Amino acid sequence: MRGTSARSDAPVLLPPGVTDEAFAAAREQFAAAVGAEHVLSSAEELAEFRDPFAFATWDEYTGSAVVMPQSVEEVQEVVRIANRLRIPLWVHGQGRNNGYGGPAPRLRGSVILSLRRMNRVLEIDEDCAYAVVEPGVRWFDLYDALRAGGHRLMVSIPDLGRGSVVGNFLENGVTYLPAAQDMAAYCGMEVVLANGDVLRTGMGAMPGNRAWHVYKRGLGPTLDQLFMQSNFGVVTRLGVWLTPWPECYMPLSLRAGKDDDLGPIVDTLRTLMLDRTIENVPQLWNAVAMASILSSRAPWYQGDDPMPDQAIDRMARELGIGRWTMRFALYGDEAVVDHRFAKVKAAFERIPGVEVRGEKHAPEAMDGLQHPFDRVQAGVPNLDIDQMTGWYGGEEGGHIGFSPVGRLTGRDAVEMRDVIRGLVEREARLDYAAVLIPTNARSFIHVTMVIFDTKDEAQTKRAYDTAKLLVREAATYGFGEYRAHLDFMDLAAEQYSFNDHAYRRFAETIKDAVDPNGILSPGKQGIWPRSMRNGA
Amino acid sequence: MRGTSARSDAPVLLPPGVTDEAFAAAREQFAAAVGAEHVLSSAEELAEFRDPFAFATWDEYTGSAVVMPQSVEEVQEVVRIANRLRIPLWVHGQGRNNGYGGPAPRLRGSVILSLRRMNRVLEIDEDCAYAVVEPGVRWFDLYDALRAGGHRLMVSIPDLGRGSVVGNFLENGVTYLPAAQDMAAYCGMEVVLANGDVLRTGMGAMPGNRAWHVYKRGLGPTLDQLFMQSNFGVVTRLGVWLTPWPECYMPLSLRAGKDDDLGPIVDTLRTLMLDRTIENVPQLWNAVAMASILSSRAPWYQGDDPMPDQAIDRMARELGIGRWTMRFALYGDEAVVDHRFAKVKAAFERIPGVEVRGEKHAPEAMDGLQHPFDRVQAGVPNLDIDQMTGWYGGEEGGHIGFSPVGRLTGRDAVEMRDVIRGLVEREARLDYAAVLIPTNARSFIHVTMVIFDTKDEAQTKRAYDTAKLLVREAATYGFGEYRAHLDFMDLAAEQYSFNDHAYRRFAETIKDAVDPNGILSPGKQGIWPRSMRNGA
Repeated sequence: MRGTSARSDAPVLLPPGVTDEAFAAAREQFAAAVGAEHVLSSAEELAEFRDPFAFATWDEYTGSAVVMPQSVEEVQEVVRIANRLRIPLWVHGQGRNNGYGGPAPRLRGSVILSLRRMNRVLEIDEDCAYAVVEPGVRWFDLYDALRAGGHRLMVSIPDLGRGSVVGNFLENGVTYLPAAQDMAAYCGMEVVLANGDVLRTGMGAMPGNRAWHVYKRGLGPTLDQLFMQSNFGVVTRLGVWLTPWPECYMPLSLRAGKDDDLGPIVDTLRTLMLDRTIENVPQLWNAVAMASILSSRAPWYQGDDPMPDQAIDRMARELGIGRWTMRFALYGDEAVVDHRFAKVKAAFERIPGVEVRGEKHAPEAMDGLQHPFDRVQAGVPNLDIDQMTGWYGGEEGGHIGFSPVGRLTGRDAVEMRDVIRGLVEREARLDYAAVLIPTNARSFIHVTMVIFDTKDEAQTKRAYDTAKLLVREAATYGFGEYRAHLDFMDLAAEQYSFNDHAYRRFAETIKDAVDPNGILSPGKQGIWPRSMRNGA
Repeated sequence: MRGTSARSDAPVLLPPGVTDEAFAAAREQFAAAVGAEHVLSSAEELAEFRDPFAFATWDEYTGSAVVMPQSVEEVQEVVRIANRLRIPLWVHGQGRNNGYGGPAPRLRGSVILSLRRMNRVLEIDEDCAYAVVEPGVRWFDLYDALRAGGHRLMVSIPDLGRGSVVGNFLENGVTYLPAAQDMAAYCGMEVVLANGDVLRTGMGAMPGNRAWHVYKRGLGPTLDQLFMQSNFGVVTRLGVWLTPWPECYMPLSLRAGKDDDLGPIVDTLRTLMLDRTIENVPQLWNAVAMASILSSRAPWYQGDDPMPDQAIDRMARELGIGRWTMRFALYGDEAVVDHRFAKVKAAFERIPGVEVRGEKHAPEAMDGLQHPFDRVQAGVPNLDIDQMTGWYGGEEGGHIGFSPVGRLTGRDAVEMRDVIRGLVEREARLDYAAVLIPTNARSFIHVTMVIFDTKDEAQTKRAYDTAKLLVREAATYGFGEYRAHLDFMDLAAEQYSFNDHAYRRFAETIKDAVDPNGILSPGKQGIWPRSMRNGA
């Protein structure tokens, strides 16, 4: 592993290389900057800021304190203190990064810079359909603000509504409305740099420019994506593009009986996305993944070996979910939705046994819809599928996401399914649970759910080991992750090795230039500051 | 002016600070790297690499030589030589950057690194609808490759087809198909860095990863937009997303009789773009701009003062162009196009006197269409509107683009029209010629055409001075340029001054880190290497 060595022998948890005196001074100065009540450091308080799925006694990814500023000025002050005293900060908006490590820091002993208290919706622009939010604003909060203001505007949301809007964008998180293809529904940010300076991107760099949150570039290089999945700055506000309510909303569901229907489904889907008949971001669930939100494993199979196809077939049939289920939706004028529904249905139902269903709704009815899929695709946040991880019947389900990217063709999807299923079943002896998410017409993210019981240390350890094995093995097929869990960020980044790691070396060059003391989120996505690289 | 001082007294044109000996050594080594016949340096040869609209005797933006490599390895070698000998390189693909300085270098005496000989279409992927091109590939070349291969795929193109595909993307250039909103139709690049290293972005950073040109991000920060409008690397290949032929193509034209129809037209357009009824990138021409491609000024007005409204009205009426003309297009299934045409027509024709016309075409008919607007919006490259700049009746028309960004609302569009028309007429005594380009549903670029006769030195100088005045004055209203002409790159960048130029200081920090010797395109978009900053 790159980065610092663990300090499991240290009686008091401190950031590496930081003395007791320096840490005490930092805590005092942080308290002066944000108020003593917004600096947390008891073991009890810190417990909330762990990877929620790590086994209870593991402490490799534990912070030393949490600092919670409420304004840009307070963030600047915290960063300046950290810079002076060389305190590593691990930054999050809400810290709901479940499956990828939650709010926990990569570097043990980091001070967690939590932006949960910066929770204002700064602006909702009805004309140009956008909102501007601080990093502590949750999907629930933004949705509530839209409803409270009477805006007939939708926000593209992820499956669980409790996370930070900004945090999701910064992790390249997926959401499901048409505006969110390629994770593109952001525009214009404000960033506090490692030296405490405040930067505004794009048109925001010009005083008085009103195009900050409507035009995605600036004059000169555009920096926004440089601050995503990185540790080059602390994003303190972000523009988010909204969508006016359509005349008609039609969530759709596709059910396929055979595992090998995957190929033709994906080829048909690509054609319908390329010609913009399907404009949103679909999800394609295999039977085990779908069953895990409806049922558990025991009624269908009791063996210790991976669930065989016969048992999966029977389960799929009896639960009425098919081997593959796709959720997607149409939005627009009723005449266009009608035309598209007929076209989509005819196209997919050319595959024997495949069935497409849907029902039209007026936008006023969206927030009363029952099925969580229908609500999510309408931008109505909820937590309904949070309990999908009790598959193995444990007390408390956890999951790790292993999420490589593939080309959206039938051939590529089937190959990736076979490779990953093979690895999961052969090497980890687990059931293969997958959700394929085409984030545009040409590619998809293969979210592999490694499910386990967080109360069972051996099973939890096996799950984490399995994920690492998947990262390594899948890379030999050219499959790389879109986002990596804390526990294998270095390993995942290691796979992007073209030309002796030219990409990582370039990212490190930028890191050293813009954060010479290496205080911002050391190790994030495999990017370490100079002082912590190569085992230093 | 920032950057190096001019050396107009130097008898032989050399890059600043470079000795005769070093320059001779560089020329010799460049010749060894790319072949002597691909290093140009006679005055005659260099004449082709000037700003084509600058007055003939002006030489502030003149290069000392042109080096034309044909492969990535040759580019690497050229960059390494330049690094060793501290030779500034000014990079272009084709160098057709007319209105913004053409192929000319910002820093007098730079060696022009021309990538025109790297002109291969490396890949056309029929399934996922993309091409991969080298930087010397022109729109004509890519179009020809698509036709030669029998691909039923369209490429989104700019108005003039002779430029470099890669070059256009790297300047944030606008094209007009739906895929090109937000200039987003690129995916995955290869870059030669200032030290000669080769970097691949996104999924390309993983060896054997086939998602390089289909997924727009990577693991960790995404770098692609960092290499656009910048001088941080030399892009040697780029993925370009294509669009499958639609069932039906319908170019549309809107004509409005009154200048103040602009407000309601823009508000209606925004609504129709926000709900994706209009999916492409329209252009909205005022009467003078449109008349300049059909006519010249003399028949309509002979005064030395700016053309008054009465004369513009009469001209618009008699040429049948209206005070505003909008070109846009619908693409898709015929049933959807029919629905949308009726909706668009009804929406705009609610504005008294406004008229919308269009005609449907099968995709097979696209390359036979007569009107250049109809061909451009179908991705069929041409040069038809190249002669639009003879407005003032001079022998050879030139133009400078002053192109600030605004919010796509009627109020903002009318305000920007009034401010810029006022400045153009009052300060420069020129006619106001404008093309508004909504690059997404929320913003537009106001391309102000400052037109002049390049054979008339006084008029040419006045035009360049006018453009600078516009940059400065418009910024006081919060209007900033999306792209700047060589001659006022520094001035345009100067306006993006939030927090003591935090944006530029950050860009400079990156510049110094990734190109410490400052050899790549010094001064590009106002970014100078450390040794040339602040008049050093």
